[in-house]
Amino acid sequence: MTSPETTSSDSVSPVGFSFEVLTQDPNSAARRSVLTTPHGCVQLPTFMPVGTQATVKGLAIDQVQATGAEMLLANTYHLSLRPGEDIVEQLGGLHAMMQWDGPILTDSGGFQLFSLAKMCQVTEQGAIFKSHIDGSTLELTPEKSTHIQETLGSDIAMVLDHLVALPNEKSVIRAACERSIRWAQRCQIAARSTQQIQFAIVQGGLDETLRVWCAEELAGSDFFGYAVGGLSVGEPPAEMYRILDATCPALPVDCPRYLMGVGRPQDLLEGIRRGIDMFDCVMPTRNGRNAMAFTDQGPLKLRNAKHRADKSPIDTDCPCLACRHSRGYIRHLFQSGEMLGPILLSHHNLTYYQRLLTAARAAIEADDFEAFYQKKMAAWG
Amino acid sequence: MTSPETTSSDSVSPVGFSFEVLTQDPNSAARRSVLTTPHGCVQLPTFMPVGTQATVKGLAIDQVQATGAEMLLANTYHLSLRPGEDIVEQLGGLHAMMQWDGPILTDSGGFQLFSLAKMCQVTEQGAIFKSHIDGSTLELTPEKSTHIQETLGSDIAMVLDHLVALPNEKSVIRAACERSIRWAQRCQIAARSTQQIQFAIVQGGLDETLRVWCAEELAGSDFFGYAVGGLSVGEPPAEMYRILDATCPALPVDCPRYLMGVGRPQDLLEGIRRGIDMFDCVMPTRNGRNAMAFTDQGPLKLRNAKHRADKSPIDTDCPCLACRHSRGYIRHLFQSGEMLGPILLSHHNLTYYQRLLTAARAAIEADDFEAFYQKKMAAWG
Repeated sequence: MTSPETTSSDSVSPVGFSFEVLTQDPNSAARRSVLTTPHGCVQLPTFMPVGTQATVKGLAIDQVQATGAEMLLANTYHLSLRPGEDIVEQLGGLHAMMQWDGPILTDSGGFQLFSLAKMCQVTEQGAIFKSHIDGSTLELTPEKSTHIQETLGSDIAMVLDHLVALPNEKSVIRAACERSIRWAQRCQIAARSTQQIQFAIVQGGLDETLRVWCAEELAGSDFFGYAVGGLSVGEPPAEMYRILDATCPALPVDCPRYLMGVGRPQDLLEGIRRGIDMFDCVMPTRNGRNAMAFTDQGPLKLRNAKHRADKSPIDTDCPCLACRHSRGYIRHLFQSGEMLGPILLSHHNLTYYQRLLTAARAAIEADDFEAFYQKKMAAWG
Repeated sequence: MTSPETTSSDSVSPVGFSFEVLTQDPNSAARRSVLTTPHGCVQLPTFMPVGTQATVKGLAIDQVQATGAEMLLANTYHLSLRPGEDIVEQLGGLHAMMQWDGPILTDSGGFQLFSLAKMCQVTEQGAIFKSHIDGSTLELTPEKSTHIQETLGSDIAMVLDHLVALPNEKSVIRAACERSIRWAQRCQIAARSTQQIQFAIVQGGLDETLRVWCAEELAGSDFFGYAVGGLSVGEPPAEMYRILDATCPALPVDCPRYLMGVGRPQDLLEGIRRGIDMFDCVMPTRNGRNAMAFTDQGPLKLRNAKHRADKSPIDTDCPCLACRHSRGYIRHLFQSGEMLGPILLSHHNLTYYQRLLTAARAAIEADDFEAFYQKKMAAWG
């Protein structure tokens, strides 16, 4: 971990990172771009498989790579609690530990403070919370989150943000949004690594005005990229799209845009249409573990008795590990409680997402994204 | 499934199977041989990974292949209960279902009647038992076991045998042994497939005289191969070796010999020394799921705190998936309850067993097995 003797963010200039928009869709805000990092290029729009605890659940790293994934996500909250960022550093950092040569993005812990930690108390200084693992009292501040992510060695760090439950009083949402902006600036000042870039996170609940104001405030601080956070937390999809409609135009056009924790295949295409470049979600692996497979005809429930003697694969065109086998075999694996069922469907669903994004990128390049979008949405039903 | 119109075993002549002893060790009963089947050759002595429910627990089939395994085992009892042999047949048989092109051996269900079924009542006709899955009452007879295994489509079928708990009265062990011989002959008569060979199973508890008599009786019925069953059920290893010392010389020298359900790495070498050609055991995968890794220096417990920040792999020379990662990472996976921990150690342990058997075969070929055996045993401690 490089730790140059710097006292403000002005003197930290990460090297080897760049972002370039290659094609702008004429009919929507969709764009085809590329993110360059010291660990390689990522073709955008992209979907990042989630490796919460430094492993994409159920898959060996070469299987993750075989899905077509180019960038992974790992979680600061989980990894700082267990095994601890110092252990990760001693094991050579996240890339060496996971044996993943591509870029890695770490989230800041903000979302887990909101969703997972017990008795979380937020002050201007930071968050005091109890570990969900052993109940010990811990503190996370913008500076500490930044330091942990530098110690983990990810390529992209997220700023620590303050999430509040929705729906909520406007004053509460506004206060959390304002705090998130101040915390983002503290993260920027705390940054010391020349091998890591930071993304700011736009908050503001379902209030379009607040979202736009937050986006503009953060844009003034010249972050490398911008995320839209605090969505996909229970609101109807239409509400999320409305917020994206308002927020995305307020984000710098020459920076990558990341919609955090989203989502279903249709949400990805809706996000891309609105100018989002990056996504992550546990849905492909979590649903896979629960016997659900994504297909071009919508979700397939592999526990269903109708698949019992079905010799056909989930998708004859899919190159994944699951689609070498019959639906009947995969049903048998789930009925028998065998690990291979979740493994195969995790691989299938991640492959499905990557194939979807590959096709979306090709459609944007061909100035054909709108037709692609319509066709996919109609098929999913 | 081929079902020629035959009325006795005399007219069933499986095609494409052969067994040849290549090298006989000058200093022990160890031998280097090859088993040819319609699904390919198996270099013996060999270890068969266990795929109880038509999946080697935790591993995709290409990962199983990468361990070096040449033949797998699957379980008649489990597969006939779920999904049912008819479903397996409709899905194209075991090979197509698992996408495994190599040979498959199925056991007969005899051991599971003894170890797993509830309220099992054995008569001369067969066994009446309650399913461990749903409590339904079922019957397994020598004829039914044979038919199920033909329907599953394995290359090697085992005869149905009658196991009894040890220690037990000599008269009980003898009666079960005599019944096992009669059942073996009924299995042979019931065989209809030209694509499957049968192995008989020697029983007789820990009584050497009974074992030798059983072996000689079965040898008179001209089976393709002979297994030693009813061992590794709680007796001290020395007792097992004593029974092998007595039994193996009574088995035909020109037929493969299979020690069922065994065992630890040292048990494999002890078996090979006594003339055993084939092994199977759940130990590599079961122990792997419990964070135990086999090494040339003995077992390694990966949950141990001393591995916390250990950057070294389990074995620097091992080509498995686990040994691309550090011990510290694998410990983290187990501490975090991640599926990848069991997956990686299952792969490591199966790879360890295959490498051990590969080295044993090379040692026999080089007339160096005794030195190899002594060196391995000393290192394991």
